[in-house]
Amino acid sequence: MKILGIDPGLATMGWGVVENEGSRMRFVAAGALITRPEESLPERLLSLFTGTRDLLTLYRPDEIAFEELFFAKNITTAIAVGHARGCTLCACAEYGRPIYEYTPMQIKQSVTGYGKADKHQMQHMVRLLLGLEDIIRPDDAADAVAAALTHIQAGRLKEQYLMK
Amino acid sequence: MKILGIDPGLATMGWGVVENEGSRMRFVAAGALITRPEESLPERLLSLFTGTRDLLTLYRPDEIAFEELFFAKNITTAIAVGHARGCTLCACAEYGRPIYEYTPMQIKQSVTGYGKADKHQMQHMVRLLLGLEDIIRPDDAADAVAAALTHIQAGRLKEQYLMK
Repeated sequence: MKILGIDPGLATMGWGVVENEGSRMRFVAAGALITRPEESLPERLLSLFTGTRDLLTLYRPDEIAFEELFFAKNITTAIAVGHARGCTLCACAEYGRPIYEYTPMQIKQSVTGYGKADKHQMQHMVRLLLGLEDIIRPDDAADAVAAALTHIQAGRLKEQYLMK
Repeated sequence: MKILGIDPGLATMGWGVVENEGSRMRFVAAGALITRPEESLPERLLSLFTGTRDLLTLYRPDEIAFEELFFAKNITTAIAVGHARGCTLCACAEYGRPIYEYTPMQIKQSVTGYGKADKHQMQHMVRLLLGLEDIIRPDDAADAVAAALTHIQAGRLKEQYLMK
């Protein structure tokens, strides 16, 4: 089973693909879609939509795991991420495979065993779980991989997180 | 020049098409895209995306006028509208014609001459300006038509509202 993890955002959308072969987890690829502030909002949103569509066509994941929208910073960030997340979700809905979502706390808990783990712990554990030589960069790509790992580890419990 | 006005929303997206023939404004069509709460969020967003795309294909507007996101109610509404607006903007960006946006206050000011006009005044003035026998329903469709009217009336000033 191949999972695409997504950490949505307007300026940077992290993504990561992990494959589950029995009890083993294999890293496939990770990266980030970047949009430039010089572009108009509609252009940036369209580029996230088509970029997500390209990733789905390229990697053909069986399921998709989103990091849930989280409003720690401010309303302006929330609006921007809301717009961007809407477009990314839309591309995934068009693709037609099941979509799940996990809160940042669920992801941290699942990957490090501690719901308030910091970025370094997360990076370290993602690297260890996948047997990688180096950490995944940028942070958003590592977060997306962590969402995919969480989805795999959720196993049968994942049904409860099906996005409504 | 044909203008598509859009009043974005997740449950109801109002739309209206108005044509500008010299100094006259002609009503073409208006309505609302409806999504059902029983559907998943990705399904609702995809249906807004494809519905907007269908409207653009059907009416071929020269320009598009959006009502700007406005946070009067609460954060939950803001997130839902943010997701929905992102998908609608994405479909318009794909279409490729210029997109403009106006605040609710600009639209009220332009259509009624009073920035704090209520729904009845708005409905009344939209009907009068377009020479219609009856008011446009639902409200969201009338609001979308009002956004299109505002864009036409903005004339050369509209350049300043180009969406960034």
